[in-house]
Amino acid sequence: MTASDPVRLRIDLAYDGTPFAGFSRQPDQHTVQGTLEGALWRLLGVVDPTEGGRRGRMPAAGGVVAGLTVAGRTDRGVHALGQVCHVDVRPLNHRAELALGDLPRLQARLDQAAGRSVTIWSVTRVPSAFDARFSAVWRAYRYRIIDASRIEPLRHHDAWHVPEGPLALRAMQQAAKHLIGTHDYASFCRNRDGKTTMRRLDTTAVVRAAPGEVHLKFRGKAFCQQQVRAMVGALVEVGLGKRDPAWIAELLAARSRKAAAAVAPAHGLTLEAVGYERPFPASPLGR
Amino acid sequence: MTASDPVRLRIDLAYDGTPFAGFSRQPDQHTVQGTLEGALWRLLGVVDPTEGGRRGRMPAAGGVVAGLTVAGRTDRGVHALGQVCHVDVRPLNHRAELALGDLPRLQARLDQAAGRSVTIWSVTRVPSAFDARFSAVWRAYRYRIIDASRIEPLRHHDAWHVPEGPLALRAMQQAAKHLIGTHDYASFCRNRDGKTTMRRLDTTAVVRAAPGEVHLKFRGKAFCQQQVRAMVGALVEVGLGKRDPAWIAELLAARSRKAAAAVAPAHGLTLEAVGYERPFPASPLGR
Repeated sequence: MTASDPVRLRIDLAYDGTPFAGFSRQPDQHTVQGTLEGALWRLLGVVDPTEGGRRGRMPAAGGVVAGLTVAGRTDRGVHALGQVCHVDVRPLNHRAELALGDLPRLQARLDQAAGRSVTIWSVTRVPSAFDARFSAVWRAYRYRIIDASRIEPLRHHDAWHVPEGPLALRAMQQAAKHLIGTHDYASFCRNRDGKTTMRRLDTTAVVRAAPGEVHLKFRGKAFCQQQVRAMVGALVEVGLGKRDPAWIAELLAARSRKAAAAVAPAHGLTLEAVGYERPFPASPLGR
Repeated sequence: MTASDPVRLRIDLAYDGTPFAGFSRQPDQHTVQGTLEGALWRLLGVVDPTEGGRRGRMPAAGGVVAGLTVAGRTDRGVHALGQVCHVDVRPLNHRAELALGDLPRLQARLDQAAGRSVTIWSVTRVPSAFDARFSAVWRAYRYRIIDASRIEPLRHHDAWHVPEGPLALRAMQQAAKHLIGTHDYASFCRNRDGKTTMRRLDTTAVVRAAPGEVHLKFRGKAFCQQQVRAMVGALVEVGLGKRDPAWIAELLAARSRKAAAAVAPAHGLTLEAVGYERPFPASPLGR
């Protein structure tokens, strides 16, 4: 390896989605990617590769080949516990060389610099065969619902309040089974502009996590935008007795967003973990 | 009873302390009391008895005798799960009469009007022998600490992050025992301007609620301002091995705030429940 060979870093992280306009960098918006990249470029002493429209071009004085690649681009308000990114760094300057030589220190400094709404679990060096997005074999999401008539105020941060509950879990479990498998999820996907809405959902679970609290878990290869929240919205209609479990199968067959229920709010959703091809480990489940 | 006899209402509530400048009403500050009273006066169609310095005077067109009386005045940023208030209302107008005739509806409307950071568990009619503050026989507080090196970002809402952990629980438990009993807690109280700092602490508990998470529980007749957070600050010093358990006894004997450790931050603290003289029930523990 020569000094200019890029080093690929895997970053495992969590965030409170509340203050962010989603993961992906957008001009003039507070995003997770913007926060993370800004902190990273400062710590590595490199020129922001995305500034001035130079995305992807190698920065003159810098060492970062391109921006972050992420496993699951979460929408505005959605949380993450086990999110995964990767970034390529060329150790062209002294600061970047030092940082790459002490990754636990880089983790601690990045954690500090990214602010209280982001936690960096780890920064590890990985072979270039690892791709945070394309090496992922599954993504796991959890959606929290409080179905008691009243909610502890602090739970507004991470749960959707459905005061018309209690939800009928057996009906929701029956309904959720229809969603498993390889399907065209067009009825549950935000407008894709002609891109495929075929996806594979491996497992679902609808459980009462505590009295007055229901969790919906989904694990699949990948999900299209708003798919989990649209599935939750539909399953809650079933849980409230407004629809039969079989309606979910009809909805899936309709392949049209027009048929669907309202999308569940973002603040109840957490990207919990991402699984990878061997030998790469899945993201950690919290501390 | 005549139409002008005041009706005493007990209000059981919870709140997320984050957006509030504490419980007690203060001019030009967003407080729990200000929010609650504002909503209550609107729903009852009464003139704000505290406006224009007329606190305690009976409002001309209204029906509220005085402002809210609260069991535990919490400081800025402190949460409550089982807070209790009372208020006296004279049903002098039609709106107040209607509201007092359907208390479940008043609870629902007050819950709605108080916003997402406040939850009204119940509004009940109580005899005038009940006083939210003076009938209370115990108050229970819980303080949450994350003592893992890293914290899930959403936990910043309700827990103090002590990354130098893990905390030594046995030492903290030993130290906490010194605090039990009737003592002068001057070392743990914010400046009281000559008022007594004698208090009675009945029970303490220091438990590992989950891996990387420690809860400290305190139950006593009453607490002076910042007492719980000052006790937590001192106990954490012991848990980190910076002080011996016996230091807590010395601290208590010193009767001076100067000797004490740093006060633990507000966002880890929750007023969990308030107990009352028979036959009045303790506040509910959540939903």
